[in-house]
This record gives sequence, structure tokens and C-alpha cells, in this order.
Amino acid sequence: MSAADVIRIAQAVFTVSDLQASRDFYVNLLGMNVLHEDAGALYLRGVEDREWTLKLEQASSGEEPRVRHLGYRVRDEQSLDALVQLAEEQQLPYRWEEELDRPRMLRLQDPFGIPVAFYHQVKTHPWLLQDYHLHRGGGLQRVDHCNVRVPDVKATMDWYAEHLGFRLSEYTVDEQDQWWAAWIQRRGGVHDFALTNGPGPCLHHWAYWMPDIGSIIRTCDILAGARQPERIERGPGRHGVSNAFFLYVRDPDGHRIELYTSDYITVDPDFEPIRWLRDDPRRQTLWGAKTPRSWFEEASPMEAFAGGVQPAVKGRLEGIPVHVI
Amino acid sequence: MSAADVIRIAQAVFTVSDLQASRDFYVNLLGMNVLHEDAGALYLRGVEDREWTLKLEQASSGEEPRVRHLGYRVRDEQSLDALVQLAEEQQLPYRWEEELDRPRMLRLQDPFGIPVAFYHQVKTHPWLLQDYHLHRGGGLQRVDHCNVRVPDVKATMDWYAEHLGFRLSEYTVDEQDQWWAAWIQRRGGVHDFALTNGPGPCLHHWAYWMPDIGSIIRTCDILAGARQPERIERGPGRHGVSNAFFLYVRDPDGHRIELYTSDYITVDPDFEPIRWLRDDPRRQTLWGAKTPRSWFEEASPMEAFAGGVQPAVKGRLEGIPVHVI
Amino acid sequence: MSAADVIRIAQAVFTVSDLQASRDFYVNLLGMNVLHEDAGALYLRGVEDREWTLKLEQASSGEEPRVRHLGYRVRDEQSLDALVQLAEEQQLPYRWEEELDRPRMLRLQDPFGIPVAFYHQVKTHPWLLQDYHLHRGGGLQRVDHCNVRVPDVKATMDWYAEHLGFRLSEYTVDEQDQWWAAWIQRRGGVHDFALTNGPGPCLHHWAYWMPDIGSIIRTCDILAGARQPERIERGPGRHGVSNAFFLYVRDPDGHRIELYTSDYITVDPDFEPIRWLRDDPRRQTLWGAKTPRSWFEEASPMEAFAGGVQPAVKGRLEGIPVHVI
Amino acid sequence: MSAADVIRIAQAVFTVSDLQASRDFYVNLLGMNVLHEDAGALYLRGVEDREWTLKLEQASSGEEPRVRHLGYRVRDEQSLDALVQLAEEQQLPYRWEEELDRPRMLRLQDPFGIPVAFYHQVKTHPWLLQDYHLHRGGGLQRVDHCNVRVPDVKATMDWYAEHLGFRLSEYTVDEQDQWWAAWIQRRGGVHDFALTNGPGPCLHHWAYWMPDIGSIIRTCDILAGARQPERIERGPGRHGVSNAFFLYVRDPDGHRIELYTSDYITVDPDFEPIRWLRDDPRRQTLWGAKTPRSWFEEASPMEAFAGGVQPAVKGRLEGIPVHVI
Repeated sequence: MSAADVIRIAQAVFTVSDLQASRDFYVNLLGMNVLHEDAGALYLRGVEDREWTLKLEQASSGEEPRVRHLGYRVRDEQSLDALVQLAEEQQLPYRWEEELDRPRMLRLQDPFGIPVAFYHQVKTHPWLLQDYHLHRGGGLQRVDHCNVRVPDVKATMDWYAEHLGFRLSEYTVDEQDQWWAAWIQRRGGVHDFALTNGPGPCLHHWAYWMPDIGSIIRTCDILAGARQPERIERGPGRHGVSNAFFLYVRDPDGHRIELYTSDYITVDPDFEPIRWLRDDPRRQTLWGAKTPRSWFEEASPMEAFAGGVQPAVKGRLEGIPVHVI
Repeated sequence: MSAADVIRIAQAVFTVSDLQASRDFYVNLLGMNVLHEDAGALYLRGVEDREWTLKLEQASSGEEPRVRHLGYRVRDEQSLDALVQLAEEQQLPYRWEEELDRPRMLRLQDPFGIPVAFYHQVKTHPWLLQDYHLHRGGGLQRVDHCNVRVPDVKATMDWYAEHLGFRLSEYTVDEQDQWWAAWIQRRGGVHDFALTNGPGPCLHHWAYWMPDIGSIIRTCDILAGARQPERIERGPGRHGVSNAFFLYVRDPDGHRIELYTSDYITVDPDFEPIRWLRDDPRRQTLWGAKTPRSWFEEASPMEAFAGGVQPAVKGRLEGIPVHVI
Repeated sequence: MSAADVIRIAQAVFTVSDLQASRDFYVNLLGMNVLHEDAGALYLRGVEDREWTLKLEQASSGEEPRVRHLGYRVRDEQSLDALVQLAEEQQLPYRWEEELDRPRMLRLQDPFGIPVAFYHQVKTHPWLLQDYHLHRGGGLQRVDHCNVRVPDVKATMDWYAEHLGFRLSEYTVDEQDQWWAAWIQRRGGVHDFALTNGPGPCLHHWAYWMPDIGSIIRTCDILAGARQPERIERGPGRHGVSNAFFLYVRDPDGHRIELYTSDYITVDPDFEPIRWLRDDPRRQTLWGAKTPRSWFEEASPMEAFAGGVQPAVKGRLEGIPVHVI
Repeated sequence: MSAADVIRIAQAVFTVSDLQASRDFYVNLLGMNVLHEDAGALYLRGVEDREWTLKLEQASSGEEPRVRHLGYRVRDEQSLDALVQLAEEQQLPYRWEEELDRPRMLRLQDPFGIPVAFYHQVKTHPWLLQDYHLHRGGGLQRVDHCNVRVPDVKATMDWYAEHLGFRLSEYTVDEQDQWWAAWIQRRGGVHDFALTNGPGPCLHHWAYWMPDIGSIIRTCDILAGARQPERIERGPGRHGVSNAFFLYVRDPDGHRIELYTSDYITVDPDFEPIRWLRDDPRRQTLWGAKTPRSWFEEASPMEAFAGGVQPAVKGRLEGIPVHVI
């Protein structure tokens, strides 16, 4: 049982090679909302978010764009104390950091090399949910989940379940019943965090909840209207896993964003995780659509605790699903 | 048989008491697109329109806002000649006018006092239909129809049918089988022009086609977000007549705009007009929703040929439908 | 602090005067799914529900249709023990009952006269969520919440908060800052349970989550197609409270069902409940639409613990909101 | 100038190898409506269609499923006379046939080998448009257009324009400005008839207008729910050409059906056809999605005038567009 009470996935920090180009993508095309900006960073949120949920930082010249950390909100300060204790017991590197509106953020590196941050205190802001006259683009609503490519899905999932209380909602195995992917959650939806087999740790994607399918279609149209259809990597479609309607887009540095809507609730104590075979045609896309190879092969590097990029370790399982183009 | 070939309803000119307030409503809230503007006028269009379809003119101080004319596109210059001949035969007042991008516009007053304009030549502009990154608000798509309140629906309809080739798609009668309303068309949809019994001639509403139901819902949300819910007069809902999904909003001067989507086609030569009883609960709104009294009682005055406001004549039939709130 | 861990609102049992007529409404028109039926009862669910969530029982001849109970799922058997202890401490009448698939259900009467059931054990069934070829009607997805009209909103809310751990998400006060309504939750959405001032206890409505706005519109169209528009009482529209898109329909006995979609999450520990003034025009419907008087004045009686109908007590506050038709 | 007044594309007759399997696809999954059936045939329509618009005939044993003809409604009997005269002048084979509800149908073979039927008289039936309680599946609304693969797009288009009065709305050329595809219309929308370069004549697809995007998404979900995702060949997506939202599905014999919504109007006399380059990434799908090779390479054979299958002639232009998977 976990001593820390993790509420939900809450924030990510990306470095980007050209903050102006990223702004154009996230703000002008996707329609994210700028909560704050300074010389080197942009703090973005969806219309339901009461805090910034994505920070974009100008990368140093020559530095490869990366994910600085993924962050979770915890219930209280005691949860942070429990996390410090966990880090010490397991000899995980950690330090206290500060971010805008979050004066006390614990950053640690999990045993799999993922840079994770936790915070309780946060300054919130009035949301924009009912300020519909200010919504732009597809109207991204709130942070929904992150998806990380890791070498060992099962081990990673087990650690998050045991130490942070994550619960499994769906999972994928190969023909030998080895774990290919897992969707785990704290918030009662399908997932706060998903894990996929492959070289890592790398961020596969960062996801926002959308108000509806029409908003996702509108985002496609807007990207096409701006003559940037190449930003659309996969979808729109409906996932077999999660039953959600989705779209994957790539930002100017290749960071992948998912626009996601319509999953289901998982709060029941006897909820039985849903099992999928890796090569079931309905798993990736309920409609049987194949997935572009880049979706399996490309992901964002993550920052190492000591700085620089965390080297990626080869995935435990070889290959990729067969429904690929 | 008509000698003039009317293509479709194409434009309206409204005078407004405060052009800046109207701009805020039509451009910032509804999301109409400014094609041109000068000191005293704004030329607006939907994203599919290749020409301006609504011109707003600053009214002179103290002058009651009104509709200067409703305009139709005709197939060729011969159609204009035929209309001049018609005007002379019937002793209808007419004159040649000019509007932006329309160098040769025939304006006449029909036998019922409605100021109508016809033009063939027009300078078109690239549309915005696939420039989705430039769409704003609900994304009004194209002019769809006008609805005029007239004292004698049947006589007006007959004249438009006989002299301008309009065809009937739906109509409403009262218990004595007297005509209460008619929907007539040239373009193969449900209507270019609708007629409703009441004091007139007055413009009941001017309508734009919307891309879908979601866009109409979004318009409601935007008006609510801007803390102007009072702009919404009726709907959203589905009309029994036309089967279209609709919303009625009122501009700052009370001019009524309908946002409209999803009717049907009427091109077949044996298309049988659909008959409704005035007090059938499914006629006004298929879902049985009642209509606000203002919707029956308020309408925009029209300009008289000689200037000033055309005096309204009492409707032939008394009363209003019973499904009213 | 509560010793019982309530997961979510989970079931309701209604008695109806004509089970066949109710079946036609719920199954043929709304598209609910029959999980089980026997001579005198129908067990219904949405496509995401893994258990029945609404049971309809044929009422005895001459008996007024009523709500037999509202039921919550709890985390474990210990929660049931804690509830028994609570009932004994507060001298609330209780007994053990059985329902189909729920062998051990604790039924008690709360201090306000509401018949409430709690269960942990349940036999679940494969859901229909991805069996889209079996969805019918609007595709009702899952039970979302109940709304009960009570004489004293504040006292009722406080009891559920103190003893069952409910958390407040939104509330409404009158000009004297007296509580008119409250929305409280266990599951991390806007509400499992809402309370409205008025004679009670009576069920105001029972609500299902819908997949999207289009599904709600489709339900309106289906009811209109079946020439039963009078089943639609209010909406569709967007609530100011909850920001959800809604429709209220009435079953053949007048039991009110809400179809509901698109609220927001409330899991954060510092979530600040949203306060509304009773007569704010945007509270009931964000778009300013008025509410039919019946919506405030009519509700379903509830069963008393000893049988028969629980007598309704007058509401603490007089009157109804001003935005009424 | 044409002497025949063609109103619109109106019907198709397909032969199928297993009428029961086809029924399951068209009626149970797509939700088409059976207007009539007899031992060897099924007459289907959309909810707005007042006549059958697709007839499925059981093919003789061993016979390759094919398209027996594509049919147009004409304005009057004189139009049929004019077509007979045209056939005689051009020595096109023709004969009078009968179909259910169409006592006098002129069938001819156009100069390019396409079997085409024309009729004026037809027995119509009450539509189902407002009988929403009877709609099933995605709710296919009305026949929209056909698309035929022909060896010489330009020559075919010119003949239909010159002799039948079709007007061009969009077209595609290759790098040498040779015509690759054309969309031509009679009804004032984007097309009644589209032509694509390739071996032919073969039917590329037969299309129905859908009420909205959501209905197309629902069709995908239904096919997936029925575990027949392989019926989905391409989409959903938005075409660059026509701006419509589309889905292509294949029936059990491989006949291709398009579900289509949201194009634009083309009634203006100075409408300028839109020109696309064959390999523009936004042409096929505005969002840049590639097209499955089968979409370019597979099509339904057509019946020869004397019976049997019309042999396909090689397309004038080689190759297929580059945006293919």
C-alpha cells in the first residue's frame, strides 16, 4: 500500500528548439491558453485546467528537445514526505524544485529512469470552461494522461502500483502472454499513465481531454487549413483500448500530443482489467485502421536526473504490432 | 412562366444604430467574416460565401434601424431586362443602384411593399471554406434564406411563383385552410424565401447555413460565455417544417438571424409540398417546444422605395399559433 | 469522517403503473438495454453499465408509482457494517434486502426520509460499450447521478458529507444566502447526488451519462418521430451548474430521467465549490433559457420504510426560481 | 445544349452473390431501409428517399457480381424522347425496361460502355425523414452521387456536359495537365457523377448523403461492434475535393459505398471549377491521410448491354496518386 496519495497526472515540461514555432502550434493552431509567459518559457493550459499543465521551455542552443519531467498532483504534504522516504529507501535520486505557482515540488527519478515530479501546493486560477467566447481551436479541455515507452512494461507498472497506488484498467500481451502495454490510473478514468514496450524511457505522448469528437475533427481541419496536415500523425479514430476517440499530432520538435475523448469510469472495486492481444486488429483502432510506423518508432527523450538526455534502454520485447503501415 | 431566372437569395442590407456594437455581435461573437469595410458600413460573409452576403450600414442619427433590401442573384443580364419589363407592366417602382462588387443592381418594390434587389454581375473573392484556421465562432457557412412577415401569404407566394418561378416546398394553413405560412425556393433546398402571416412587410429573419449541429450549439455557448444569453431568442431545436436544426438570435438592434442546418432537397419535378396545420405541436419544433411570443410579434421594418420605413399593413389572419410562451 | 466508503450512485428501483408502457419508453424509445426480466419487473442498464442500474417494478393495482430506493455501491463489506453501526447510533430504520445479482443489500431510511440502499457484492455482466451494433436509441451509457427534492438542502447535504464522505462541487443560494440546492459527489465528477429545495423527499430525477451531445439530440428526434414530443419536458440545453449538456424526459408515470453529458472533474483536494445565486439567468441554463414550471413542481414520491408513500414535508424555502415559464 | 433535362442521380442496381449476406450488411449494419423485397431482390432507400435508390439482385450462380446500371431521374417524358433521339443519332444501344415503381425506363449504353438508365415516372412513397424512431445504424439519408472509373475522363466528362448538361465543379490534373478526375453535377451540389482515370468502365463507388459527421462515426463503430472492421476501407476523413466528410465501406461482394456529408452549393452561373494537382497531399484527404491502394485498384464491373460483364479498357493515364499506402 502506498503512503503517498497521488491524485492525478497534472503537468509536463518540454524543452523546444524554437519557442515561437511551438507557440504557433500549441496556441494558434491547437488553441491552448497561455496562462503565463516569460522570456524563455510558455505556461499553457486547457479550458478546464485551473493551473498550467504544459510548460514549454526554450532549449539551449544545440540541445536536443526533451521532456524535463512529468508531474503528479498529490493530496497533501505528507504524501510528499512519504515520497521522500520512498526515494531514500530505494536510493532514487531526488531534489526539491520550484515551478511557477508550485513553490514546493519534489522531483525524483523513478527506478526506470523516468523524471517524475510531485507537488501538493499550487496557485490555481479561474478556469475558462464557461468562457466559451475565449475558446479557440479545438478547445482542449484538460490534461488527461501521459504515455511513456519503457523497456519493461510489467516491472514499471508493478512499481507504480505498489508504491504509488496505481490501478490497472487495460493491458496488452503478446502471443507468449508477455506484457506489451498497460494503462494505469489514479483518478477513476481509464488512465493517468500508460506504458508501452520499447526503447526508453521516452515520452510517447502527452494527452488532453477534448469536449467531443467534433472538436477533434475541427483540430484536423484547422491543421489542414493552416497547410500543416503533416502535423497529423495518426487518426482520428476510436481506440479499441479505452474506447476513446483520438487524434495524435506532432509538435514542431516531434513531441507527440494526443487529443482524447470519451473513455469510461473505473472506480468499482471489482473492476476487471481488460486484456488485449497485441495483434488483435481492433486493439489499436476499433475500426481496424493500421498505425503509422512512426507512431511506434518515435518518442521524445527524457531528461536525466543529472542533466542531459537519459539514455534509452532497449525494449524487453522485440518488434512492433503487425497492424502498421 | 418567369422570364427572369433567379438563382438564389444572395444578400441583405441592414441599417444599424451602432455599427461598432453590431460588429461585436456579428464578427466577434457569431464569427462572420469581414470582406470589406468603410467608414459607414461593414460587408460580411460566411466561410463558403464568395461575395459579401450581409451589409451593415450605420443608420442616420434618430433613424429606426431597418432592412434596406433583400437581394437575389439572377442568371444573366437578360433576367434583369425581364425584371424591368415586369416592373413596368405592373407599375412597380424600380431603379438601378450600385453596391460594392455589384455594379449593376436592379432595385424594385414588389407589389407587397418588399424592397427587392436583383443582380447578375458580381466580383467574387476566394472563399474561406477550407481555411479552417481562419474560422471563428460557430463558423457560419453561407447565406441560406430570408423570411418575411407579410399581410397576405398566399397572394405574395403566388406572385413570386408566377413571376419569378419560385416553387413551394412546405406550407401551413389554419383550421379554415387559410394560408398562414409558405416556404418557397429556387435553389433546390427547402427555401430561399419564407412567408409568414402578420403585419408587414417586415423581415422576420435572415438565415445562414451552419456546417453542423455542433456549430449551432457552440454559438449558444459563445453567447453565454460572453454573458449575452439574452441574444438567444429561440432554440436550439429542430423545426418540424424543413426538418432543419435551428437557432434564432437577435442582433443589438433586434434584427433576427437564424442559424440553420440539415434540411433536404426539393429538386424532383413531382415533389409534393408538405402541408402543416398551424397548431400542430410538431410544426414549429419537432420536439414540441413552444415558441417565445416575441418570435411571432417582433420583426424588422423595411425601407420604403421613396425612403423612410414602409408602413406595416395588418396581417390577413388574426392571432398567432397556440404553442407560444 | 465516514467509516463507510461509498463508491458511487449505482441503482434505482421505480414502481410503474404499466410495465409494458414503461418498457416501450425505456427500451424502445430511450434504447435502454434489458439485462433481465421476469413477470413483474424489468432490469435495465446503459451500454457501459456492467450491472442493472434501473429496475422497473409493476406497481400493485391502485398504488401510486414511486421510487422504492436509490442505491449506492460501497467498497467492501466493512462499509456495510459501518453503515449498520451508523443506523443503530442514529436510530435509522434499516433491514437487509436482496435484489437480483445483489445478494446482500442494506436498506435504510436516512434522517430525511429518503430510502437508500447500499451493497458491495454484485454479479456483473459483460458490458455493451463496444458492441455498437447493439446500441439503440440515444445509446444511454451509464448511470450518472440522482437528484432529490428535500425540505432542507443544507441539513441533508451536511449529513451525507459527515457520515458518507460526500464532497460538495456546486451549490445555489438565495438572496439571503440560504441554501437552495447542492451537488455532491463521491466519484470525482460533478455529482452522484444532487439536492434541491422543495417538498420532499421526492425523486426529482434519475440521470444517465450520454456519449455526446448528438446522442441527446437523437433522443429528442426519436421521441418526436414516435409522436411523443410531450415526453420532452426541458431542454436540450447546457446547464450553468455542472456545465453539462442535458435533456429531461418524463416516463409514462411521470418519473423524470435526465440525459446528461460533458461535466468536469473534481478530484483535486483544493477544489473550490462553485456558488450560484438562485436567480442568476445563467445558472439553470447557461444560454438563459427558462425552465418549465412542472420541472420545479413535479417529482416522484418515495417509498416509506414501512411501506406506502413517504409523506412530503414542505420545503424550508418558499417559491421557485424566477426564470420559469 | 442538352434536350434532356436530367434532374439528378437516382438509382443503382447491383447484383450480389449472396442476397442474405448483402441484406445483413446494408440493412442490419448500415441501416438502409427495405422498401420492397421479393424472392430475388431487395429494394433499399435512405430515410429521405421517397423511392428505392439501390436495388440488390441475387446474381445467377457463378456470375460475377456487377452493376447492372446507374440511373438518373429526368424532368419529363420529352426528356426521354430526346434521349432516344440522341441514342439513335450516336448509334448507342438502348431499350425500354421496367423496374419496380418505374414503368418506363430507358436504358442505354453510353459511348464509354457505361450502362445508364433514365426515367421520369416513378411511384413515390412517404419518406422516413421525420420518423426518427425508425432510423437505424448511421441513418443513411439520400442517394448523393456515383463515381465511375473510366479510361478517358476528359472525353467522358465532355460527352455528359454536351449531351446531358452536366456542369463541372472540381477536377484533377496530373503534372502534364492531363485530366485525372472530374466531378460533375446537375443538382447544384458538388456532384451527381464523378469520373476517375483507370481501367473501366467500372463503378468506383455509390454514395449516400449522411445527416452529419457523427452518423458516419457511428457507422464505423457499428461495423467494429459487429466485428467487421474489415468492411471499412478508407476514412473517416475530409476530402480536399468537395470538402465533404467521408467514409468508404465495402459490401460482401466488394461493391464500394461512400457515406458522405457536408459539401457546398454550385448553383451560381459563374461558379469556377476548382482545380487540383493529382499529387497534392490535401486533395484526397484534406488532413493529408494516405489512401489504401485497393481504393485505387478495385472497382465493380459493369454489365454490358448484351449481357455479361463489360470488358474494362485500360486507363489513358498510367499510375496512381503518390499518397497511397
